[in-house]
Amino acid sequence: MVKKQFTHVDGVGRLRMVDVSTKRPTRRTAEASCVVRTTADPTALTPNEQGVEPIHAARLAGVMAAKQTADLIPLCHPLSLDDVDVVITPSARGLEVTSSVVTVHHTGVEMEALTACTVAALSLVNALIKDDPFARVDDLALLRKTGGRSGDWGRLVPPPLA
Amino acid sequence: MVKKQFTHVDGVGRLRMVDVSTKRPTRRTAEASCVVRTTADPTALTPNEQGVEPIHAARLAGVMAAKQTADLIPLCHPLSLDDVDVVITPSARGLEVTSSVVTVHHTGVEMEALTACTVAALSLVNALIKDDPFARVDDLALLRKTGGRSGDWGRLVPPPLA
Amino acid sequence: MVKKQFTHVDGVGRLRMVDVSTKRPTRRTAEASCVVRTTADPTALTPNEQGVEPIHAARLAGVMAAKQTADLIPLCHPLSLDDVDVVITPSARGLEVTSSVVTVHHTGVEMEALTACTVAALSLVNALIKDDPFARVDDLALLRKTGGRSGDWGRLVPPPLA
Amino acid sequence: MVKKQFTHVDGVGRLRMVDVSTKRPTRRTAEASCVVRTTADPTALTPNEQGVEPIHAARLAGVMAAKQTADLIPLCHPLSLDDVDVVITPSARGLEVTSSVVTVHHTGVEMEALTACTVAALSLVNALIKDDPFARVDDLALLRKTGGRSGDWGRLVPPPLA
Amino acid sequence: MVKKQFTHVDGVGRLRMVDVSTKRPTRRTAEASCVVRTTADPTALTPNEQGVEPIHAARLAGVMAAKQTADLIPLCHPLSLDDVDVVITPSARGLEVTSSVVTVHHTGVEMEALTACTVAALSLVNALIKDDPFARVDDLALLRKTGGRSGDWGRLVPPPLA
Amino acid sequence: MVKKQFTHVDGVGRLRMVDVSTKRPTRRTAEASCVVRTTADPTALTPNEQGVEPIHAARLAGVMAAKQTADLIPLCHPLSLDDVDVVITPSARGLEVTSSVVTVHHTGVEMEALTACTVAALSLVNALIKDDPFARVDDLALLRKTGGRSGDWGRLVPPPLA
Repeated sequence: MVKKQFTHVDGVGRLRMVDVSTKRPTRRTAEASCVVRTTADPTALTPNEQGVEPIHAARLAGVMAAKQTADLIPLCHPLSLDDVDVVITPSARGLEVTSSVVTVHHTGVEMEALTACTVAALSLVNALIKDDPFARVDDLALLRKTGGRSGDWGRLVPPPLA
Repeated sequence: MVKKQFTHVDGVGRLRMVDVSTKRPTRRTAEASCVVRTTADPTALTPNEQGVEPIHAARLAGVMAAKQTADLIPLCHPLSLDDVDVVITPSARGLEVTSSVVTVHHTGVEMEALTACTVAALSLVNALIKDDPFARVDDLALLRKTGGRSGDWGRLVPPPLA
Repeated sequence: MVKKQFTHVDGVGRLRMVDVSTKRPTRRTAEASCVVRTTADPTALTPNEQGVEPIHAARLAGVMAAKQTADLIPLCHPLSLDDVDVVITPSARGLEVTSSVVTVHHTGVEMEALTACTVAALSLVNALIKDDPFARVDDLALLRKTGGRSGDWGRLVPPPLA
Repeated sequence: MVKKQFTHVDGVGRLRMVDVSTKRPTRRTAEASCVVRTTADPTALTPNEQGVEPIHAARLAGVMAAKQTADLIPLCHPLSLDDVDVVITPSARGLEVTSSVVTVHHTGVEMEALTACTVAALSLVNALIKDDPFARVDDLALLRKTGGRSGDWGRLVPPPLA
Repeated sequence: MVKKQFTHVDGVGRLRMVDVSTKRPTRRTAEASCVVRTTADPTALTPNEQGVEPIHAARLAGVMAAKQTADLIPLCHPLSLDDVDVVITPSARGLEVTSSVVTVHHTGVEMEALTACTVAALSLVNALIKDDPFARVDDLALLRKTGGRSGDWGRLVPPPLA
Repeated sequence: MVKKQFTHVDGVGRLRMVDVSTKRPTRRTAEASCVVRTTADPTALTPNEQGVEPIHAARLAGVMAAKQTADLIPLCHPLSLDDVDVVITPSARGLEVTSSVVTVHHTGVEMEALTACTVAALSLVNALIKDDPFARVDDLALLRKTGGRSGDWGRLVPPPLA
């Protein structure tokens, strides 16, 4: 017997979108986060006058990417989004990226939040990579979600990984 | 005086694409990698019969995303790509994702490799997240690049982070 | 007097999208099909180990294309899709491609089903054309639809063509 | 041993884009054709005053779709196109659609020609389907190609299918 | 204190999409207009037999662009559109372009109407610019809107500009 | 006889892309400009702390739109761009938008410059329209171009319109 590893796979191993047409539209939110790290002193990333526009560009790239999630992730449903936001703040680790997405729909927006977060981070990496090819993204994961049949969920701390 | 943090920022703090029209087209390659981790036993991710199509979907999503890099990352140049590949292999950490991109052009393909890698990883996360909302992506970074004025470069091991 | 040949054309010959804002959203489905034929022995197309990934790629290309229907067909409405599926099976004629699309909306998804079917077929042709430039697609048409004001409809057999 | 069915599949069954970075750019052309058929009297499709704009819309949809081929077909290379044209003419069978695409590049444009042809045909089907749900597309195939290592090729008549 | 110049900017100067998830979907319409002017005798623009297809192309380009508004304007919400139309008519000033967009949604379609209008105008400029590089677009603005909390609004005459 | 009004129209009135495959790639540049006007005191548009991010967003929207020109304007060739820039400066008339685009290719980038300029302006209108529905765009036109067979050209002052 085949052990189930992935969702979106039916009984005979075929990958499938989930039919959401019988689910009720409700308000759903999702937040995701990641961190952009550099080998340089991370405090050097605190945006000064010159850092303002790269930060803005990364935020906008993330917002615009959320709207293209269904074009990027094969099994995501195309849907209307009611709000997308990306926040970028310096920390001791580097630049922390957080995204939040809201919809009123019959499917969740976890992947939209993750996509916004990721593309914002890639846009920051694009601004760092010439000087620091070691620039990297870590801890890209869902932070919180509300709404939908599976209910609310939040990540408090990174769980121990296997 | 304004300290330079980011490339793409000119002397007065304005974000700018780099004008590559005077550079000579040469063959350039870039590779990137990341890992998709789960709180489940990572050996459970070794693709069995049911895991084949999600892995294929993630590979294709990565390949297709590389072609959309310039639509996602604001300051990337649109360019022809001559080869894109994504490899996904199970490891003790989870699913290792590696991408490689080739072009003959007057600009590099580092961001294309990173974008392919990232979207392949997000497509895997999409297949895992319903059962494991803690699923996450780590170590997303450039692995190697060849060609161009700045020459060849390779990451051997993760450098110590500040 | 001008004889009406095409829908989407108003009384003075102007092409127009149909205003669907006063129609009620209902669950609608559509299925389409086509066949990819080759000059080679069609049984050679029965997917063996090597044929698995091209078939998967074609299925995914079809699913992703359905989501882009409104970008491709000028007068199609952009809309949310609740489910898209593409099935590819070998037959005596070649590779049979069938697509199905579901929405809850005030317009039908016939064109989405046809687009999914077509792009899946083109993706298969892409995998065959180097060895068989005669590879071709036939019988691309709607198979069935349900919902909407015009009601349910199904094609049982190909009707005689004029 | 695994028998090779599809191009783009490497020795271990992995689907791959073809690396074209070492090929020389040359002028390449491709033409494709298909026919849109209806259960109505095909002479009714001869464009009169009302049919002009749907025909124009279909031609443009085809031209624009050629430019999106690499976004639709997973393993196609993104490339510059130097010319795209679509011609639609009534015949005894229905509406004949022919496309032609030209590039100076190191990869061919067969798929671009097929995509242009297909989307033009789908746009015509979109204009017919409300009155004739049996409207269908047949004989979608490459017509001719020039340039590239594999040389010139032309389809004179439909070959007998297996 | 920071004086508010732009909407979409929050109290600390951060650009934000407006969260529309708590607004009620209602039928909303918007119309926009602009004029394409040429240094040539504007009566020369009255479409004769040769001018028909460029006008059709511009209309379709406008309709298709409306569907891509959220991909172009960073803070626009992606949404379903129920009707899009573009009308192009010659006048003493040049070619008048008018667009109208309809949705049933919890956000307005002003930007969709403006985008349709603009891209239709650019498509006309594309057809004129080789012979008249002075070809230009003026008076691109909202014409009318209905629905939504802010109610109906119409521009009767161009207001005096500061 | 049909008098020629538009380029891109062949002898029998058919709209056509121009085949550029036999033209030599050369460095080409184009600049375009327009002005965003408001009924408010235009000096109020001088970006203060709150105005910084809307200006950045408009610049980036313009840069990203230039890369999508061939997707928006039906007869434009898809091509690589080597540089895109958008500058926004307050004036007595409102916000002046200027764009510049560079390529090494066998076709010009006039439409890319116009598209960048337009979408940047629309993004500014998006930020103004809630408070000033009369906000409008004027004087959208080519400013200068260099390279290509037709040579260099510059607009010094707005010519008298017919």
